[in-house]
Parts: sequence; structure tokens; C-alpha cells
Amino acid sequence: MSVAPATSLGVRFTVLANNAEEPAAQVVAETVLGSKDDPHTVLEFARSCDVVTFDHELLTPEVMEVLRNCGKPVYPSPQAVIYAQDKLEMRRALTDLGIPCPRWAQVDCAEDAINFAAEVGYPFILKTSRGGYDGKGVWFVHSKAEIAAVLEKKLPSGSQWLAEEKVEFVRELAAQVARSPSDQCVAYPVVHTIQRNGICFEVVSPAPDLDPGVAARAQEIALQIARELDVVGMLAVELFDTDNGVLVNELAMRPHNSGHWSIEGSTTSQFENHLRAILDLPLGSPRALAQWSVMGNILGGNVPDLYSAYRHVFARDPELHSHLYGKTVKPGRKVGHVTAVGSDLRELRSRVEHAVAYFTGEINE
Amino acid sequence: MSVAPATSLGVRFTVLANNAEEPAAQVVAETVLGSKDDPHTVLEFARSCDVVTFDHELLTPEVMEVLRNCGKPVYPSPQAVIYAQDKLEMRRALTDLGIPCPRWAQVDCAEDAINFAAEVGYPFILKTSRGGYDGKGVWFVHSKAEIAAVLEKKLPSGSQWLAEEKVEFVRELAAQVARSPSDQCVAYPVVHTIQRNGICFEVVSPAPDLDPGVAARAQEIALQIARELDVVGMLAVELFDTDNGVLVNELAMRPHNSGHWSIEGSTTSQFENHLRAILDLPLGSPRALAQWSVMGNILGGNVPDLYSAYRHVFARDPELHSHLYGKTVKPGRKVGHVTAVGSDLRELRSRVEHAVAYFTGEINE
Repeated sequence: MSVAPATSLGVRFTVLANNAEEPAAQVVAETVLGSKDDPHTVLEFARSCDVVTFDHELLTPEVMEVLRNCGKPVYPSPQAVIYAQDKLEMRRALTDLGIPCPRWAQVDCAEDAINFAAEVGYPFILKTSRGGYDGKGVWFVHSKAEIAAVLEKKLPSGSQWLAEEKVEFVRELAAQVARSPSDQCVAYPVVHTIQRNGICFEVVSPAPDLDPGVAARAQEIALQIARELDVVGMLAVELFDTDNGVLVNELAMRPHNSGHWSIEGSTTSQFENHLRAILDLPLGSPRALAQWSVMGNILGGNVPDLYSAYRHVFARDPELHSHLYGKTVKPGRKVGHVTAVGSDLRELRSRVEHAVAYFTGEINE
Repeated sequence: MSVAPATSLGVRFTVLANNAEEPAAQVVAETVLGSKDDPHTVLEFARSCDVVTFDHELLTPEVMEVLRNCGKPVYPSPQAVIYAQDKLEMRRALTDLGIPCPRWAQVDCAEDAINFAAEVGYPFILKTSRGGYDGKGVWFVHSKAEIAAVLEKKLPSGSQWLAEEKVEFVRELAAQVARSPSDQCVAYPVVHTIQRNGICFEVVSPAPDLDPGVAARAQEIALQIARELDVVGMLAVELFDTDNGVLVNELAMRPHNSGHWSIEGSTTSQFENHLRAILDLPLGSPRALAQWSVMGNILGGNVPDLYSAYRHVFARDPELHSHLYGKTVKPGRKVGHVTAVGSDLRELRSRVEHAVAYFTGEINE
């Protein structure tokens, strides 16, 4: 999705991809095939670029090390990315900065978890500090026995156990900001992210009925994190909206699913502002173009050929914006999204949810 | 500019380009290098595609012939493209359809032109039926002596001389429509195209103060031409707005400069609707997203490095949309465009003209 603004800005991309069928490799003019985990490959690649950026945070320590010393601007920097990679590093840093988080504790043994449960009660959450996404690597723990069962699981490489309280939240929010090396920042409207089975199902921008003070606080937190952790590019801060204010859930240092609405819903998309930021160009306005934008994720269902749905979906809704990622359909995999922009939120949600259900194969009319 | 919607739609492009530095080749993932004028190259290329389309109309008769018989859908078809290639064919076809045109005549010798002048008066226009663009291949003729001088010029291959009356117009308009093989059509708002030295300088959408009846008539003409000439894809009809109604000036069968405003100014850009049309997918809504859209062409000036202008232009106007084409800057060459969308036409024009002048190097603040 960064290809469109890169083309507009006349900025040439080279992508490092595992194979030519990866979504980015399908649409970027110059592709280098190689492993993102091989330090030598990454170093060679970085040296061929003017600026290096990422569409994920899955960097090995060895790769982070070569990027730190490659002599090219790397944004977000390895020093910042660590806080998006490792939830324990993130919790420590945010707590030091006085940013509101759920109560948390590092867990090195069952006793640590039992002590934490004594403080916050059951159920609470055990998660791996690294490698989790879309609900993976996260367990709700209801008893001592469950603590023991979870802690028997194999940790991803470099990962530790982290305990967090189960937050009673009203809803989940996301606050996105872009920041440039010159420290210019812009804040996007705070959005409501709606989850199903641990995966984001829908995003509504701006979050409906959100107290303006809470919205401003969420943006403030995102701006503070971007500055204090020296994030360059897009930063997404996922938040719990609770009766006692917002708490930070997770960080992502890249264009993020919660900002896909901005492609059609904002003056400047998150993808364009990510590029402007890493190039240290003045940022574009994040102003919303309509009262509401609704984005729905298309998850892989039982229809392997997404193209077969185009005729019906496009004919039914000539104002819908469809994005299909060129991924092989697998159950639950994010294979695309649709966006509708306008003034009638109920109608927009209904249109988006219809298209998503049709693409997924849940409905056939 | 078709890369962005192709990426969104999950449609893969292969481009046939003369060399890897051509703008399309820079941004399309799969490029085949070869000459568009070589029938064998074009045939091989066409056979590797599911659908073939063009970003220009410069096809030789031999290439048109192989495309007619390549066994793949080719849109617009060679049968239709002829009317965009050859102004004499276009005038004959439109006159047969009863579509209003300036008075015209085929000119095979000086006497034909002298007779035409006797009918319409001096000055009138002599043009080559093929190969002209941006004011090239067009001469205003004020006397018998000038007729003789123009007719001594070498005609492009396959071209003939065409005489047209000099129309007293209020302004120039363009009407764009998309049409699919299933005969679905959509009509974009009629725009005002502002020329300087024979080159489009600015486009305002919709054309300000245009009588709704005239606007509807212009759209009707474009829809009629699309259907009668069996055009598939985008069709741009350039028109003269005169005191006695609209007259057709030229046709283009592709996404056209007069529709670049639609990237940000319309629900569905001309580039997306061109793709939807040639794939026989339902067309997207051409509805304007704001009261006004203003597009300004960046012509090559005395600043070879366009990137050096980004910082100033972007900082001055965070809501401006910039498109740079990756072309080498040459004086007068279209190397990019900018678009502003909003409700204050005077302000939008001022912002667009400032950015264009800055990119061109006419101003430096």
C-alpha cells in the first residue's frame, strides 16, 4: 500500500522479499530476493538504499546490529524498534515515562505469576514478550494450574514471559502519529478498533462518542511515545478505553491496520506520511475528509478466489473502496480490506460488513 | 498512475517499455523491454496478457493489425483507437453521427484549403490528421501564402492534411466517461481546461458557472461517442464551449490529463475506472468528493531536480497532493502535477499555481 504514495512522490522502492510471490514483491518494481533474517543479506540490501524502512518488526538481534552500523538512515531505528518488538521492553520504557499501562510484571517462574495474580486477581494475562500478533502468544489464565500449563509452552527466541492484568475496557482505541527526524509530528484522529477472536474486524474513524478530552489524551500519549522513544515514521498506539482513562496496550512502528481508513478517509494517508517522515519531508495533513470512515478487514474464508466476488461487490456498492493484497487465501488470514467514507455511520458499517461477509463467503448475495 | 488502483484491485500489470527509465517501467513490477512499434514484440507481449490496454494512441497500422488478431481482449480496440489516432477519421465519424464539430475539410492540395478559406474565412487551422499533440502539428493560417508554406511541411507517416475553422470559444471543456464491454457507462463532471501556449496549464472540476444544460449536453456527447465508436475504457472528449453550444475538438481513449483531478477529487479515479472497464468489472462512482478540484500541470522549467522543491512546497501546503512522474526535466515537458480539493476555488487555484510556479522555478519563495 506504500507503492501508491511512492509513485506519486516519485520515490523509488526496492523491497527485500523472501520470494517473488510476497505481496510487496508483486507490486514493487525492484525486488531483491533474500532472507530478512540473514545479516549479510540485509546489510548488502541496506547499503543499496538511501533510506531503509520496514513493513514489520520481526528483526533478529543480529539484523538489528548490522542495521545500526550500516551507515544508512534506518527508520524506525533499531533503538526504537525494540519497543515494538518486545512487550517487556515496551512496558518498562512506558512505565518509566509515566505513561498509563495495565499493571504488569516480568515472569521468570511460576511464583512470579502467582504473586502477580495475588495483586491483580484471576483471570489475568500471560504473554510472550516477543513474536505474538493477532491474539497469538497471549493466554488468559484463570488458576495456578493454568499458570503452570502456559509456562510450559516454548518461548519464541529472545522472548520472556510477561504478566498483565485483564483490563475491563469499554472499547479498544488506536492513536496514530507520524514523526520525522526533524521532530515534526502529526496526529491522526483516534479510531475505534473492533476485534473478533483477537483479530481486528473493523475500524471506525473517528471513534464514535469519544470524549474530546480522552481523544486528546490518547493523541498526547502517542506523540509523547513517538518523541521519547525517538520513533521516526508512523507509530500506532493501541489503547484500552476504560472508565479510568486510557491505557496503552501495544505499539506498532509502521503503517498499521488501524490506519488503513486513511487511504481514502484522510487528506494524507498513513502510507504517504510514513514515506514523508522517513525522508524527512514536511508531513501531509492528517485531516479527515468526511465525517466517518469505516474500514473492514477481509479475512480468508472458504472462497479461495477473491476475484470471483468483485463483480457482485462492486456492482452492489459503486462507492466502496476495495484493497486486495494478492495473498493466498488461508482461513483467518488478512487478505484485503474495504473502506467506505461518508456521513451515515450505520449505513457505512452495514456496507462494509456486507462486502467483508461476501468476500469471506459467509453470504452469497 | 494506474499502478495505485491496480495494486488496490490486486490486478497485476506487465508493461511494454522502450527502456527501464520510462516512467511506467520505473514503477511497474513486471516490465518487458521492447519497441511498441515492432509487431512481433507487441504480439508476443499481448499473448502473455489477459487483457491489453494503452497509455497512448501511437500505434502503427502493423501493430494495430496484430492486436486485432492476437486472440486477447484489447481495449480500446484497434477499431476504436483509429478515431483517436486520426483526426480526419474522427471528423468523418462524428459528422456521420450528427455530433457537433467545427467546420472541417480534408485538404489534399492548396486549392482545397483555399476553397475552405472561402467558406470559413481567415484565419483558419491546418493540422496533420495524425501525430500532433500539445499544439504540435497545428498551424493558424492567415493567407494563401501561409497555406502554401504549411502544406510544404512533411506529413507524419499515414497522415493527411485537415482544415478546421478557427472557433470563437468562450473556453475549453473536457467531458470524460468510462465504458465497459458490457456497455456500463459513467460520466465524470465536465471540467474547464485552461491552456497556455497550446498546453494544458490547469483543470478546474467542475467547470465553473457552466450552464447545467450545456454540461449535460457535453456528457451526452461523450456517452454517445463512447457507445457509437465502441470505446472501452476511459474516453476524454475535449470540447469548445461557444455561444452556440459545444463543439468537439479532440478525443483521447485512455486516462487523460483532464481527469488527473479525479485521483483525489472523485470517489473513483479515472485510472481505477479505466482498469475496471477493461476488466469488465462494475464501474466505480465518478462522484466528486468536494465542491472543487483544481489540477495544475508541472511543466519542465529551469530546475532539473524536482525533489529539491519538495521541502518548500510540502511545508507551505500540507493539503496539496503532488504527483511527480520520474521523467527527466525538459523545458515544457509535463513532468508532474499537483491537485488541491476544497470549497474555495480562488484559494485552491492560488495554491496550485504557487506550487506549479515553484516546481518550475518561476518563483523561489
